[in-house]
Amino acid sequence: MSEYPDDLRQLVEDYLDGLRFSQAGATAGLEEAMRYSLLAGGKRIRPVLTLATTRAIGRDPAEALPAAAAVELVHTYSLIHDDLPAMDDDELRRGRPTAHVAYGEDVAILAGDGLFAEAIRLISERQDGDPARVVAALRALAGATGVEGMVGGQYIDVTEHEFDADALRRLHELKTGRLIAASVEVALILGGANDSETIGYRRFAGELGVLFQIVDDILDVTGSDEELGKPQGSDERHGKVTYVSLFGLDRARDLAAHSHRKTREALAEADGDTGDLELITDFIHTRQS
Amino acid sequence: MSEYPDDLRQLVEDYLDGLRFSQAGATAGLEEAMRYSLLAGGKRIRPVLTLATTRAIGRDPAEALPAAAAVELVHTYSLIHDDLPAMDDDELRRGRPTAHVAYGEDVAILAGDGLFAEAIRLISERQDGDPARVVAALRALAGATGVEGMVGGQYIDVTEHEFDADALRRLHELKTGRLIAASVEVALILGGANDSETIGYRRFAGELGVLFQIVDDILDVTGSDEELGKPQGSDERHGKVTYVSLFGLDRARDLAAHSHRKTREALAEADGDTGDLELITDFIHTRQS
Repeated sequence: MSEYPDDLRQLVEDYLDGLRFSQAGATAGLEEAMRYSLLAGGKRIRPVLTLATTRAIGRDPAEALPAAAAVELVHTYSLIHDDLPAMDDDELRRGRPTAHVAYGEDVAILAGDGLFAEAIRLISERQDGDPARVVAALRALAGATGVEGMVGGQYIDVTEHEFDADALRRLHELKTGRLIAASVEVALILGGANDSETIGYRRFAGELGVLFQIVDDILDVTGSDEELGKPQGSDERHGKVTYVSLFGLDRARDLAAHSHRKTREALAEADGDTGDLELITDFIHTRQS
Repeated sequence: MSEYPDDLRQLVEDYLDGLRFSQAGATAGLEEAMRYSLLAGGKRIRPVLTLATTRAIGRDPAEALPAAAAVELVHTYSLIHDDLPAMDDDELRRGRPTAHVAYGEDVAILAGDGLFAEAIRLISERQDGDPARVVAALRALAGATGVEGMVGGQYIDVTEHEFDADALRRLHELKTGRLIAASVEVALILGGANDSETIGYRRFAGELGVLFQIVDDILDVTGSDEELGKPQGSDERHGKVTYVSLFGLDRARDLAAHSHRKTREALAEADGDTGDLELITDFIHTRQS
């Protein structure tokens, strides 16, 4: 397994741990459910991407912490809703009971809803910088979350059952790709990078989303329950079309290697100190969970 | 029944009807489910409040249409999620099957999620005005939606079962009051009203939320199924504590009349042409559905 920018991950972890959402006793239980899912660990790939991109374009990573954390709140909200009985009906996530198992379905739905609202609140209340840039960052995050993003991707996932390679790519572009791309994009926006600077980063972010998903599909087949924190083989049990079900394991690994090369090539064309982003790219390719 | 600012309502209706969320065929079904709930009619009290407040402080109501529509999207999202089997498990809303009955529980959850994301997108993409004000409007909307607002109120509603009058007031302040207040507040923010101008309006908005809820509780007992668009008496069947269950019908009507007077008094202290806001206040007091 590759190295990882653990300094940035720690910044994210500490910031997330410091977040409080409820001022009143009556809503303390909702905050508890939100924090249960938010603080379940993980590599924090999305917010670390935001901070690493901020550093790459020559800014202080800490400047983008509210936006970075907001991306992780949105990601966590999507996991909670995806796990619900009416969706994938999953009972384990990161080795622990999913939110609806731990707190009930009603509270889980509200914990997801609450995380999304608090993500928008976090950026609009705490993100420093030119207000026009803050609005643009919110636009990028909301666009990546809505019908033409994560929520639309999840809709395709629960309603479509026949996929060819193009349709599968489109599903993942919406469901996971756009939020990964937004993790990079909000950093470019807030950091004030100009258009010619951002082309390489944007291409990098798009390719990275593809790489992430191919590896995710491979790990669902090859990982152990313990490494994954959930039962191995859940995609197949859910009848999901994946890169592995469409192409077989060997070809999926080739596709991952190809996607990894393209991601690194895109990054090589981006100006700046992209060392952390290279680490993240290699980590995503070689991760075991 | 009182008059109503139907010109503003028509502006809202036309704007909502013109909204499109999906660019791709694969997500067209999600857009359909979102529009099913969004275009189910109703008086559009929240967005009309936004436009009426905008007019009251001397601005063109049309300027605030994206923000007004966004408030209605958030309201619609909350109705869809509140109706879910895991929450109130309601099958009728405005005389039609609720979203999960019409489209399935998975799609209903996503339609709610999508409406919230598109609400934020709408303001961040289309709301004109000083970006600092747009950020402040988003902050007001997200705050009114999150743990210290609508979502937190719904959490109290599904988890608490013992209420005294103060606890009931607090529940409704979060669950419905803050979004009603935000409907007024975004107009004040976007219109650039200064602090001394806004005190009266803010007090008005707070009182109006209380009035709205007391009347809502009364109508659940006194309205007909046809007027309400859902089975009469559903609060009692759900075991909900209401102003009627706590105080009885006669005393609840007295409370409504008292709240109506306080709302009108607050409005009388607000500078500007508050005629439309008076109409809305009287309508909320005397409405039959």
